[in-house]
Amino acid sequence: MKATQTVRRILANYEGETPGVKARLCQMLMNGRLGGTGKMVILPVDQGFEHGPARSFAPNPAGYDPHYHYKLAIDAGLNAYAAPLGMLEAGADTFAGQIPTILKANSANSLMSSTASKDQAVTASVDDALRLGCSAIGFTIYPGSDAAFGMFEEIVEMRKEAAAKGLATVIWSYPRGEALDKDGETAIDIAAYAAQIAALVGAHVIKIKLSTDHLSLKEAKAVYKDEEIDIATQAARVKHCMQASFDGRRIVVFSGGAKKGADGIYDDARAIRDGGGNGSIIGRNTFQRPREEALEMLGKIVDIYKGKA
Amino acid sequence: MKATQTVRRILANYEGETPGVKARLCQMLMNGRLGGTGKMVILPVDQGFEHGPARSFAPNPAGYDPHYHYKLAIDAGLNAYAAPLGMLEAGADTFAGQIPTILKANSANSLMSSTASKDQAVTASVDDALRLGCSAIGFTIYPGSDAAFGMFEEIVEMRKEAAAKGLATVIWSYPRGEALDKDGETAIDIAAYAAQIAALVGAHVIKIKLSTDHLSLKEAKAVYKDEEIDIATQAARVKHCMQASFDGRRIVVFSGGAKKGADGIYDDARAIRDGGGNGSIIGRNTFQRPREEALEMLGKIVDIYKGKA
Amino acid sequence: MKATQTVRRILANYEGETPGVKARLCQMLMNGRLGGTGKMVILPVDQGFEHGPARSFAPNPAGYDPHYHYKLAIDAGLNAYAAPLGMLEAGADTFAGQIPTILKANSANSLMSSTASKDQAVTASVDDALRLGCSAIGFTIYPGSDAAFGMFEEIVEMRKEAAAKGLATVIWSYPRGEALDKDGETAIDIAAYAAQIAALVGAHVIKIKLSTDHLSLKEAKAVYKDEEIDIATQAARVKHCMQASFDGRRIVVFSGGAKKGADGIYDDARAIRDGGGNGSIIGRNTFQRPREEALEMLGKIVDIYKGKA
Amino acid sequence: MKATQTVRRILANYEGETPGVKARLCQMLMNGRLGGTGKMVILPVDQGFEHGPARSFAPNPAGYDPHYHYKLAIDAGLNAYAAPLGMLEAGADTFAGQIPTILKANSANSLMSSTASKDQAVTASVDDALRLGCSAIGFTIYPGSDAAFGMFEEIVEMRKEAAAKGLATVIWSYPRGEALDKDGETAIDIAAYAAQIAALVGAHVIKIKLSTDHLSLKEAKAVYKDEEIDIATQAARVKHCMQASFDGRRIVVFSGGAKKGADGIYDDARAIRDGGGNGSIIGRNTFQRPREEALEMLGKIVDIYKGKA
Amino acid sequence: MKATQTVRRILANYEGETPGVKARLCQMLMNGRLGGTGKMVILPVDQGFEHGPARSFAPNPAGYDPHYHYKLAIDAGLNAYAAPLGMLEAGADTFAGQIPTILKANSANSLMSSTASKDQAVTASVDDALRLGCSAIGFTIYPGSDAAFGMFEEIVEMRKEAAAKGLATVIWSYPRGEALDKDGETAIDIAAYAAQIAALVGAHVIKIKLSTDHLSLKEAKAVYKDEEIDIATQAARVKHCMQASFDGRRIVVFSGGAKKGADGIYDDARAIRDGGGNGSIIGRNTFQRPREEALEMLGKIVDIYKGKA
Repeated sequence: MKATQTVRRILANYEGETPGVKARLCQMLMNGRLGGTGKMVILPVDQGFEHGPARSFAPNPAGYDPHYHYKLAIDAGLNAYAAPLGMLEAGADTFAGQIPTILKANSANSLMSSTASKDQAVTASVDDALRLGCSAIGFTIYPGSDAAFGMFEEIVEMRKEAAAKGLATVIWSYPRGEALDKDGETAIDIAAYAAQIAALVGAHVIKIKLSTDHLSLKEAKAVYKDEEIDIATQAARVKHCMQASFDGRRIVVFSGGAKKGADGIYDDARAIRDGGGNGSIIGRNTFQRPREEALEMLGKIVDIYKGKA
Repeated sequence: MKATQTVRRILANYEGETPGVKARLCQMLMNGRLGGTGKMVILPVDQGFEHGPARSFAPNPAGYDPHYHYKLAIDAGLNAYAAPLGMLEAGADTFAGQIPTILKANSANSLMSSTASKDQAVTASVDDALRLGCSAIGFTIYPGSDAAFGMFEEIVEMRKEAAAKGLATVIWSYPRGEALDKDGETAIDIAAYAAQIAALVGAHVIKIKLSTDHLSLKEAKAVYKDEEIDIATQAARVKHCMQASFDGRRIVVFSGGAKKGADGIYDDARAIRDGGGNGSIIGRNTFQRPREEALEMLGKIVDIYKGKA
Repeated sequence: MKATQTVRRILANYEGETPGVKARLCQMLMNGRLGGTGKMVILPVDQGFEHGPARSFAPNPAGYDPHYHYKLAIDAGLNAYAAPLGMLEAGADTFAGQIPTILKANSANSLMSSTASKDQAVTASVDDALRLGCSAIGFTIYPGSDAAFGMFEEIVEMRKEAAAKGLATVIWSYPRGEALDKDGETAIDIAAYAAQIAALVGAHVIKIKLSTDHLSLKEAKAVYKDEEIDIATQAARVKHCMQASFDGRRIVVFSGGAKKGADGIYDDARAIRDGGGNGSIIGRNTFQRPREEALEMLGKIVDIYKGKA
Repeated sequence: MKATQTVRRILANYEGETPGVKARLCQMLMNGRLGGTGKMVILPVDQGFEHGPARSFAPNPAGYDPHYHYKLAIDAGLNAYAAPLGMLEAGADTFAGQIPTILKANSANSLMSSTASKDQAVTASVDDALRLGCSAIGFTIYPGSDAAFGMFEEIVEMRKEAAAKGLATVIWSYPRGEALDKDGETAIDIAAYAAQIAALVGAHVIKIKLSTDHLSLKEAKAVYKDEEIDIATQAARVKHCMQASFDGRRIVVFSGGAKKGADGIYDDARAIRDGGGNGSIIGRNTFQRPREEALEMLGKIVDIYKGKA
Repeated sequence: MKATQTVRRILANYEGETPGVKARLCQMLMNGRLGGTGKMVILPVDQGFEHGPARSFAPNPAGYDPHYHYKLAIDAGLNAYAAPLGMLEAGADTFAGQIPTILKANSANSLMSSTASKDQAVTASVDDALRLGCSAIGFTIYPGSDAAFGMFEEIVEMRKEAAAKGLATVIWSYPRGEALDKDGETAIDIAAYAAQIAALVGAHVIKIKLSTDHLSLKEAKAVYKDEEIDIATQAARVKHCMQASFDGRRIVVFSGGAKKGADGIYDDARAIRDGGGNGSIIGRNTFQRPREEALEMLGKIVDIYKGKA
């Protein structure tokens, strides 16, 4: 499969990176209905860990079966499917080679006390990802948490190993922690900072949340006002986050958060597209809907990124 | 020994797993009076560590001798015998090859202050299990404990090593910790979540406790009500836990807790069977009874799983 | 030197253990005046670390010199001599091959604040023991301490290495910690539990203290009463501790604690003998007495174990 | 390129150091407009990590692009460019060989709570520096922080590895922590102490801040008075810091802190020069200005070190 | 150079030690004006780390230059020179082979808060010592500190590596910590205990402070009184500390603490000599004096150990 010029241009930004990493990024960028456009839609299913099985799968019980999600991602023509160790293992053989997979290598859960909840456990390794035929590892960092330094050190080590073994690294950069209030977690200055940190520690693909026009850090507020940074619309905020991701030299995909109406999801996708983002990573909003409805929604999102909707 | 089709179907769920792991799972599934049925009864004797020797063995002093439990498990025709390092070592040569063994690789005890009691010590290694001819390692995690992340990281590393060396992994997933009250430890939403976590970190066999119809997590309560998840009977709760174990793609065995009357134990076994569970892991209720009584009880439990009682 | 049948029967209990470990156990069991009887008397000199040099050696200043203790153990015809790294090194060449030695591999001291005093430092390694020609390593665990899990993990790793390199492991199992009061540290239920834990983590030789008829754990009290466990005499308590040591499948030696009168020491030895214990580990009560007096005392203890006194 | 006698004299101070380290120091000392003079001007761009992207780059948005800084350092004829992992990776191929680079190997950020802010995360490795063709690693220590011992141990290990692999080590020695108030962080006694510590743990190049004439440590105050140490002018303080850096046997570069007027910057450079310092490390004051203005400023600083301004 | 009989007798106490260690001890014992006498005078210069550069070197500014101290030790005909990594590196080539050096491998400083000040950072490695041609590593332990266990474990590991690589180990055993008051730090019972601990963890050379006749530990007081241990004079206390150092089987050198008058220093040396100690380790009292005065003082101290003053 020959890579398009758009994809080759994106790959060129990963200067000095191993051919293995570039090959895996290429594989994800060339896969599915958005293959070759430089845009990506990824299905992540780590909610069984984060929120428990019933909250995640009871709304559409077919989702209790790990095979369901492989099939959904394949049939919707997505770029990649991301999940924790057990989920991937349960279908790794049946669906081998049918869709690029991302092994989510650390995980949190809703059973911990608040003291312990600002961190994640490392629940898989680079060798697990190799064994399961994955294209990338996924890793969450919590900028703002007292545990953040430890998480940075974990992913820096793991990324080095992954790159040396030819795997790409996707970093979920989710501001959370002792120093942030609830509004701060989705504030635009924090979101841009989170993207910057992910880029600085070496992410190949950055996953951040869509943000609000709230500003959280005192020192940042002045700068946003003085320099008249446009954060009025979601598209403007996406654009600012792309700036913070080495002026667009890194692939950035956005998540929209909790389950919401279809129109809201489409608006999000259009804002990501218009702001120059690389795509969506969308989980509960698809797999908690009936399969046909989910396929239709994913189809429409793909069309939006293609500029057809 | 040719594996039955039932067993081969179960093994097929362990996609991409090493032949060594599958061979060991097969060995346990094909052993004893339930061999080939896909059902299992396991004898665990780690109470000497957990509760001390007198509380565990004084009711039936023959049990002070580690040989007693090997013999009990063999004579009852069980699938496997699980115990800590010292217990297995004390009979490893005499009973070599006569019953699959599971080396319990971490342990707690009743001597610690409450602060320290939400964790376990790693008291054996994968190489110990190989040396002693075991089929699997056993490992307890405490979802809900502040120490849970550390425990997850320990078992993920140990499971990887065990699988690479051809040993299966059994995870005791026991909710416990700072964030859970006493009722929460046996609540059905927590039990299902515990099963899910064990599956996600890569358990080949999951051991959980039978649960009550209590719901513990606020966010979960709404889901169980909205989605009308049936948790009214023990069989229904077992069924829900099997869903949470990758829709039955993982072997799950259930324990019943403290010593109780024989009828209660048989009712438990029937509920596990009717809910689609894979079997029982039953310790004090057998080895604290006189040997003949215990053999009779285990015989009846086996009959229940065979559908004859 | 041909091992006696008694010794061979004891060695047979170490099922699946390396020939190296069995050879070292045999060496200690066959050495000295009790050689071949299955009984042992060991001289431990770690009090310089635990209590400081003056408290340990000023009563008999000859003991400041490490050579003194080697000579005492050799001349008294004991089974083994146990000491920390520096003590053994200071005579390792002069007395090479003249008595089996046990390298005490962790140590506490009386200079720490109470917060830090529930743990020990690892102050020697298995390779140190090999280099110095030792027969075994010695290691203290404090069941009941918040640091106990760490200590268990240390000795489990160290024991594995020692066994692989052909050295036996002696565990000092001394209940101490946040969850125990002063009476609890010597209570019979705790002593038996401590012996059980040492056996479970893989001790070849267990060292515990003689206990009182006090019962400490609430849940244990009921069991001791209900099951009518005999703890009335020291001999009965020794017998119960042997039960807790895999029904006598492990070698157990007992210490008597602080310096006391000679008659008390002889009574202790008789109780250990009558309860089926394997012997005494006796330090301050010998090396703080003048050499001739100490030799006479050790001679009489040996005679007691031979049934002659 | 033949090294000047001045540079060879500096290199001779690194006694017993590997030829690799000396070659890299030589490379930096011989590069750019100050090449061969023994003076250095370095561009550091780690503010995206430390203060976030908008505060760092919004004043001159061209700086969002990592290529901008490579070009600025090259076009200004500087000695070296220092930045974190992601920043260097994003231009490592395009600018390979055009300017010596320093991989900043640990990083802090402004999102942490104050409790966690006295430390940094290790965010890159020596092997990363080798892979990216760097001349040195950079590492921050916080003398005065409770985390300082850990930071010292990290850099001592990393320096050893770097030197063995032929890379130089630059230490940012920034007093900060529980034991220091705001004035203490820039006090001259503390600055000299920080330089001394960096030298003692093995820095090849020391980076400290310009200091005030404040004295912070009680014991130090007396000495400065009794011995009549001259700390009245910035040049005198630079001179004292050079004394504290093994009497000038180590290269020391100074930073001036927050953005300030051009005249202040030139005064700083003259003081460094007159006090015998080796040069400036200057970031925000250049890259936050428009490129032409920054080039002019850097040109003038270079002239100052050449004694022409 | 043929070792004297006195030196050979000292070396014989290091039973079973590697020839490399013995060679290095021999090298230090045979060097300088006291060579062959079994006595040692060592120059330690770690005060730049401990107290900062101005407090250490401003009284005699020539000492800012690391070369100064090498020369002082050489010209005074001392046995060895001890300093941290950077200090040794700065003269390692110029003075190679001219005096045995001891690499101080851990360090504290006066910038830490009191919480953090009961520990030291490991700031050099055994391989650093080999690379720099050192004869020994030096390491401080703080018996009495909550961090002491960690320090013991560090030096036990490091000593093992050093001995295997043919380097001797000098332990600075300085009582300090949560459990000791100011008087306790220099009390004779604590000093003897500190010497004993250093010997037990394997020190080849022990460095302790001269002590007072204060007794600190309650249990020790009784023993000193009951056993009538002579602690009335400094010489008697030195003698007692030699007892505590395996009855003189280990080399012990004493430091006198803060700067004091010349006569006090000479009295100290005579007490050490008369009590049977091996010598002095003396820093500030020499290098803070003008060079000629320091040389004269060191000359007189050497004469004292030779019995000529």
